Amino acid sequence: MKISRIEHMCEGNGHVIIKEILDAPQLNGKCRMYAEVILEPGCSLGYHEHHGESETYYILSGQGEYNDNGEYRPVQAGDITFTPDGKGHGLANTGNADLVFMALIILD
Amino acid sequence: MKISRIEHMCEGNGHVIIKEILDAPQLNGKCRMYAEVILEPGCSLGYHEHHGESETYYILSGQGEYNDNGEYRPVQAGDITFTPDGKGHGLANTGNADLVFMALIILD
Repeated sequence: MKISRIEHMCEGNGHVIIKEILDAPQLNGKCRMYAEVILEPGCSLGYHEHHGESETYYILSGQGEYNDNGEYRPVQAGDITFTPDGKGHGLANTGNADLVFMALIILD
Repeated sequence: MKISRIEHMCEGNGHVIIKEILDAPQLNGKCRMYAEVILEPGCSLGYHEHHGESETYYILSGQGEYNDNGEYRPVQAGDITFTPDGKGHGLANTGNADLVFMALIILD
């Protein structure tokens, strides 16, 4: 499993930890990324758009504020977000524990 | 989220609970299923093969015994399994708590 720590991802606060579950051959040209992502308290993944792909978050634990293409809503364990091609999103940890979620990018 | 309870899935013991995170339009012809799966204590998902697709399990919690195309090994939170096209797998909960995992099927 490749683990990356990215500072100020998409101009977010702090850092994002990305644990990649599948490599490129396994993703088989159908998906671009499949990962468990961790936002520690105070950290956020800044707003960004997806083009030529969709991205789904599945929240595993923690509390966050999700920016769904400009509309904000709280998210917690069990919540699903879906960003279709051409739209954008961001996510901030608003709690005192790690915000952990699965991220899957499916190509168009 | 579509939630299914399947008895004796692939001739396994007990039942399997499948929470589908994406529907067919969202899977976009690239993946066949993306789900959180729960095996309660004593339950198993029987051995089965995949053809024309791969399947990845990412273990979120619990203890299990994974059948990796005929070879058995224990699995726990953080473990990744990958079954390529033409191979098979099965999974049994060997603990006292739910065995919870993400399942992703990517088409060839």
